[in-house]
Amino acid sequence: MELEKTAKVSLVGAGPGAKDLITIRGLKVLNQADIILYDALISDDLLSEIRTDIPKIFTGKRCGQHSHSQDEINELIVKYAFEYGHVVRLKGGDPFVFGRANEEIEYVESFGIPVSVVPGISSAIAVPSSQGIPMTKRGISSSFWVMTATKRDGTFSQDLQYAAKSSATMVVLMGIRKLNEIVKEVSKYRGSMTPIAVIQNGTTQHEKCYVATLDTLNNSIGEVDVTKPGIIVIGDVVADHPSFFEEEVQRILHHAI
Amino acid sequence: MELEKTAKVSLVGAGPGAKDLITIRGLKVLNQADIILYDALISDDLLSEIRTDIPKIFTGKRCGQHSHSQDEINELIVKYAFEYGHVVRLKGGDPFVFGRANEEIEYVESFGIPVSVVPGISSAIAVPSSQGIPMTKRGISSSFWVMTATKRDGTFSQDLQYAAKSSATMVVLMGIRKLNEIVKEVSKYRGSMTPIAVIQNGTTQHEKCYVATLDTLNNSIGEVDVTKPGIIVIGDVVADHPSFFEEEVQRILHHAI
Repeated sequence: MELEKTAKVSLVGAGPGAKDLITIRGLKVLNQADIILYDALISDDLLSEIRTDIPKIFTGKRCGQHSHSQDEINELIVKYAFEYGHVVRLKGGDPFVFGRANEEIEYVESFGIPVSVVPGISSAIAVPSSQGIPMTKRGISSSFWVMTATKRDGTFSQDLQYAAKSSATMVVLMGIRKLNEIVKEVSKYRGSMTPIAVIQNGTTQHEKCYVATLDTLNNSIGEVDVTKPGIIVIGDVVADHPSFFEEEVQRILHHAI
Repeated sequence: MELEKTAKVSLVGAGPGAKDLITIRGLKVLNQADIILYDALISDDLLSEIRTDIPKIFTGKRCGQHSHSQDEINELIVKYAFEYGHVVRLKGGDPFVFGRANEEIEYVESFGIPVSVVPGISSAIAVPSSQGIPMTKRGISSSFWVMTATKRDGTFSQDLQYAAKSSATMVVLMGIRKLNEIVKEVSKYRGSMTPIAVIQNGTTQHEKCYVATLDTLNNSIGEVDVTKPGIIVIGDVVADHPSFFEEEVQRILHHAI
């Protein structure tokens, strides 16, 4: 006789990309799942660490395929919880940092299904770190601000202005397509020599990092693949990146000509 | 014949407190160490997961004992690297979030010793999350700002004002001793009914969380142990905390009297 399955849901943060940057608890919970729903930022490397007999359903968007809406994902989680038992919802980074975790939690709990959350390392912090760019640095930056640049209607958030005026390290997510406009907006409040970094595919073997200043980024902006997600870091802490000095020399030479 | 030890240093983030919220890579690196230097926020639970034959040196401040200065820690790391080989420097949270990682990296690298960094989950994000408080929430908050409230000279940073004016979720670290003043300062720009949470011993069994609004926090402030570190979260996302509704009811009743 098969034991009856009890419906429950775990939201697990996968971390920034590399498979061994998930937490010990996160991987343990994954291997206890009856079914896993994972999103577009989850690497195959990580999936290969999970028991092969656990069904793994992709719910993200990839290569222009139809993507699931948040409503559809919510419904899938509940459907599978009643059908399979323990559903693990695997999300890139941390579920509570732009992960829409609350929407899933509220929906699932409304069916009386208990939800637990396992935090993950947020890409917003770990991706710059992996490039040697700290979030804070004594005497240089005593705060960091993680934001999306634009509001739902596509206009710039007023917060971008406050952030640019402050001395905070700015970490802008989901801003690659508006990179030019972001640089223009921030340049109104911060000096043209403010260091900036753009990082794509962070912590994976395909990682790319472009380092410049607000006034020289245009030179490398053509190399940035705007169809892929990436993280923009603006602030003096970016000067800690090993290639920033080289970049600075190039800039000075360029100005001298 | 004993193999010669090669001096190298790994900075490892331990995460927010619970022993299984360190990354898989982090624990692996710890168990490959020749010696470990750990700071005050590291739990005994986590230390007990590491091979017992690896020497573990405490470098933090506890119970009013003499604490090591950053200079002394830097020197210890280098000394042990030459003596023992692989030094793992274990820090609470993430090394690059108020962890002074750069100072250690710069010092150690100046001796030609290679340094690698393993990120950890920052308490700034995971501690509120573990209480059900998200950093961002669609339609409520599209950014979060992690900061220390005061500058090195003890005065409030101008950034606190910008943050209070913005719609960002504010996460204030190392601010417990100035809790009253922070609330006063933020109240100049945000409504008195803005939710606020104070969390101590986050993600451990001793976790305490106080939830209130800017104008009612005074009622619970006496319970907060100002001698212990804690995290202050200010913003509408705090209303997601399960006990916030209860608190709100109390507040309305109180106002009605």
